[in-house]
Amino acid sequence: EEVGYGARKLQHLTSLTIAPGYQSHCTHIVLAQDLYEQRCEGDEPEEIEVVPWSLNRLNELLTQEECTEARSIAALFMVREHLARQ
Amino acid sequence: EEVGYGARKLQHLTSLTIAPGYQSHCTHIVLAQDLYEQRCEGDEPEEIEVVPWSLNRLNELLTQEECTEARSIAALFMVREHLARQ
Repeated sequence: EEVGYGARKLQHLTSLTIAPGYQSHCTHIVLAQDLYEQRCEGDEPEEIEVVPWSLNRLNELLTQEECTEARSIAALFMVREHLARQ
Repeated sequence: EEVGYGARKLQHLTSLTIAPGYQSHCTHIVLAQDLYEQRCEGDEPEEIEVVPWSLNRLNELLTQEECTEARSIAALFMVREHLARQ
């Protein structure tokens, strides 16, 4: 809700690690669907910029210089696979 | 060559980050093709276990409890996309 939407459907897809031999850190990937507008205060030091982007254009997104974060990329591919299976 | 193969074809696909706001760490993803057997001494404290796995079975790999590392998962999806485009 920090990005301005609530979701009627939340689904845990997977949990990702980034250096499992060194860090116990784990990122849970949750697919939010059936959204509605609702904003709650977040805990980020600055406002989050929301850039809508269609999953159909995922490959184009990956050519952007700004889009390099491995967990986000893995999550987007996994969401696309998940939705394609439905 | 730590895993027992050399490659006649190496191709830089992308560079991934894991927490770009905090770390300058960057992982280069290189696709190695046209392999031949050759082993060089690596710098890992233990021997690397090589588990051959077909990209066609990527979704099955992702259901394995051991396979959670975000850069590896992102890289495998990106390689699959890259090869599909050829």
